[in-house]
Amino acid sequence: MQKAFFSKTAQLLPPTVLTIFGATGDLSASYLIPALLHMQEHKLLPESFKLVCVGRRELNSKSFLSFILDKSASLRKVSSKTRSEFLKKLVYFQGDFDRPESFGALAKLLSDHDQAEHECYNRLFYFATKPQQFSSLAQILKDQGLLVSCTAHKRQARVLVEKPFGFNLKSAQSLNKLLLKYFKEDQIYRIDHYAGKETVQNLMVVRFANSLFEPLWNNKYIDHVEISVLEKGGVEDRTAYYNETGAIKDFLQNHILQMLALIAMDEPYNLTAEMIRDEKLRVLKALDTFDAEKIKNQLVKGQYKSYEKEVGGKTTTETYFALKTFVNLPRWAGVPFYLRSGKKLSKKTTEISVHFKEPVRCLFKGCDSNVLTFKIQPDESVYLQINNKIPGFGIELYQANLEFGYKSVFKGEIPSAYERLLLDFMEGDQRLFIRSDEIEASWKFVDSITESSQFTKAPTYVYEQGTNGPKEAEAWIAKDLKNWWTK
Amino acid sequence: MQKAFFSKTAQLLPPTVLTIFGATGDLSASYLIPALLHMQEHKLLPESFKLVCVGRRELNSKSFLSFILDKSASLRKVSSKTRSEFLKKLVYFQGDFDRPESFGALAKLLSDHDQAEHECYNRLFYFATKPQQFSSLAQILKDQGLLVSCTAHKRQARVLVEKPFGFNLKSAQSLNKLLLKYFKEDQIYRIDHYAGKETVQNLMVVRFANSLFEPLWNNKYIDHVEISVLEKGGVEDRTAYYNETGAIKDFLQNHILQMLALIAMDEPYNLTAEMIRDEKLRVLKALDTFDAEKIKNQLVKGQYKSYEKEVGGKTTTETYFALKTFVNLPRWAGVPFYLRSGKKLSKKTTEISVHFKEPVRCLFKGCDSNVLTFKIQPDESVYLQINNKIPGFGIELYQANLEFGYKSVFKGEIPSAYERLLLDFMEGDQRLFIRSDEIEASWKFVDSITESSQFTKAPTYVYEQGTNGPKEAEAWIAKDLKNWWTK
Repeated sequence: MQKAFFSKTAQLLPPTVLTIFGATGDLSASYLIPALLHMQEHKLLPESFKLVCVGRRELNSKSFLSFILDKSASLRKVSSKTRSEFLKKLVYFQGDFDRPESFGALAKLLSDHDQAEHECYNRLFYFATKPQQFSSLAQILKDQGLLVSCTAHKRQARVLVEKPFGFNLKSAQSLNKLLLKYFKEDQIYRIDHYAGKETVQNLMVVRFANSLFEPLWNNKYIDHVEISVLEKGGVEDRTAYYNETGAIKDFLQNHILQMLALIAMDEPYNLTAEMIRDEKLRVLKALDTFDAEKIKNQLVKGQYKSYEKEVGGKTTTETYFALKTFVNLPRWAGVPFYLRSGKKLSKKTTEISVHFKEPVRCLFKGCDSNVLTFKIQPDESVYLQINNKIPGFGIELYQANLEFGYKSVFKGEIPSAYERLLLDFMEGDQRLFIRSDEIEASWKFVDSITESSQFTKAPTYVYEQGTNGPKEAEAWIAKDLKNWWTK
Repeated sequence: MQKAFFSKTAQLLPPTVLTIFGATGDLSASYLIPALLHMQEHKLLPESFKLVCVGRRELNSKSFLSFILDKSASLRKVSSKTRSEFLKKLVYFQGDFDRPESFGALAKLLSDHDQAEHECYNRLFYFATKPQQFSSLAQILKDQGLLVSCTAHKRQARVLVEKPFGFNLKSAQSLNKLLLKYFKEDQIYRIDHYAGKETVQNLMVVRFANSLFEPLWNNKYIDHVEISVLEKGGVEDRTAYYNETGAIKDFLQNHILQMLALIAMDEPYNLTAEMIRDEKLRVLKALDTFDAEKIKNQLVKGQYKSYEKEVGGKTTTETYFALKTFVNLPRWAGVPFYLRSGKKLSKKTTEISVHFKEPVRCLFKGCDSNVLTFKIQPDESVYLQINNKIPGFGIELYQANLEFGYKSVFKGEIPSAYERLLLDFMEGDQRLFIRSDEIEASWKFVDSITESSQFTKAPTYVYEQGTNGPKEAEAWIAKDLKNWWTK
């Protein structure tokens, strides 16, 4: 058994103070603080580390930690040693974004801390708040003089911005413009936590470290690609936000298009953030944007049955979509990309499947196409469907999977996407974060769908929850003589 | 779980009488009769079937069956119902090859049988005797008028010849000439039981039913191929024969070159025996024959330590060989084939591994080449080594196997190679049997090594039993900057 790889150099990172805005929110309680606690336990935090948690609630450091520990069942196994060590590094700060002047004390806290330590810390700010607050937050940091990096020690101020990054191209451009007024691009970390998932990180490795796949990775050998992000859960307590957003803006613009970029990109010249993102951008810019005709023919929208009841009114917001698009690069000419996501489906699974063409002529009866599948979640695995002979008499074919499951090979815990991304943030590694131009190219494509008047006119098919989505999406893909691979 | 595929049409085969010569020998007791009993149990014998077992011992049908059942532990689980049904179909015939006239009674037995049944049976003869007896056997069959097929019922006489088929090109040509004097090529079944093994049969399916491999199956993408047939056992009671033969004639000429042909052949135009064997022949004819220089540089011979004691005298016979050759077809130009076999090694395993070239430049540290391995025995499986990212921080590579193990997918028994080949013999399907020209092309290559005076002069390195063979074979392949894949 191979052990998952843990960084041995994390503790050697420069002194860091990480400030989380929105520390009492769901994201923070469910992912960020648990990830940091886990990093504390595995000695993955910088030797000199301070965590400032900013929230509106009246709490102190101790009661904040109890509040977090109470919320998350998985944290109950955190040792008391880890808790007390973590608590020593933690400061809770009560702040109100509506009263920017209350943040003067935060600035004082940070500079007092540096003075007391006789050291200038890297200043990392995590925007885990509502997106509407991103711009006031940036303004606050600017006004309080917190964006000044300490040049003497070569320290840096960095900001990590949670999704959603804008709600269309225009708003994303405004947000980029605002952030770029205060920060340089190399200080801005736009997160898409899918990028931190193991099988997503493995995409570039499988594609470029193996001589087997790259020669076949083009329209001569690939028939189509499917990316499916299926969820069992519904909208839950995000109804107001979700009803404004819909499945396409919520999942296509970020997770799905990022995975598509990693599948379709060319091999970068090297592994720097710049080169990787240049290649991804090239793909995102080449996405075949929609028009009214394509909205009619290449898109199916759906809504689960109880959705209107949950929202409390008539709405055409999609909780499901399936669409077909193309990447207008020579390598991908004519290869459809089927992209799909939905809520309240029969199961939770995220898969990317690359479907190779069938042999031009099949010597045997019942050849099926080869399919390389990356299972992103749950149960990370890579598997390749090939035709094999069924043992016994005759030559009957059987579609066997050559499979590599992470659980069967790697013992121990696999670090979460947030741990990976938090460490990269601390290390100043932008490779898994999204550049402004990538965000804008993605929105440009999404806007061509969602900002069209045809989109509103297009039918939203109601589907039973616990199914595979609207029946219309099955019929639609069947017209292309294909079936959904991810069931 | 998928079930192994059993023929539903075996019982519909025409009436068949199968005569086994050498029925009390090891091959018969260990493989043939057990295979036939198993076929009886699974209703895989023709509805009208008679088995005539010819041996020198004084036995009757009942005592013959007891003799077989006593020899093989695996047969103890055969049900009494199967035994008694099998016994009804069995006739033991005592015959002495040194007194051909004793076979008059066999001829009478077979023609009486047909008369009693009012039907003309297919007459199948299995030569499971010593190779020295093949020619006298053919002569006996001819003299006794047993080779006349019954044209009225479109019945056929067929002969199945066990290995070794000759001991060099000349003797193989004589044997072919002799057999072809009495039989037409479509009546002659030269067996290589490796051809009946599941993973060997799967070679053509994996190569030609999957669009993934064929585009890469050439010298642009393949670095080298290794075929290793490693045995744990020694020569046992075959010392006299083996010492005349050696590992190269015993394994290379048949099993290994047949597997090589299946790996290197082009896709046949169709699945007829003619077309498949035409393509295999094309490869065997293109084998790069040896000369004195190549024997020096491209061959390592070995002998296990206690071998001379077993044989009872000084000998240079090889119980191990490793050699490098090429297939002189454009597809394979410059691609070395490493072929290896030996006795008394650390374990028993037969594997074919196709080693793809490493990426021309590797973006990551530690790219290894992709390897597609067919594990022929034991534990049939197909696995593909690919580079994956180790979960966790950083981008460390790990060589993972995408694996498909027969046992994990197919429930129930997998029919043995001999069952498969016996059924094909009864069905008149020659696809898995070897044509005269294939045999001769194989011997031509083998002769270029073993008939050379340089071969006798070449050193035979002694190796400890239970090891991987002579150390010299490790050093030799290391000169090519490669390692043995099969350990």
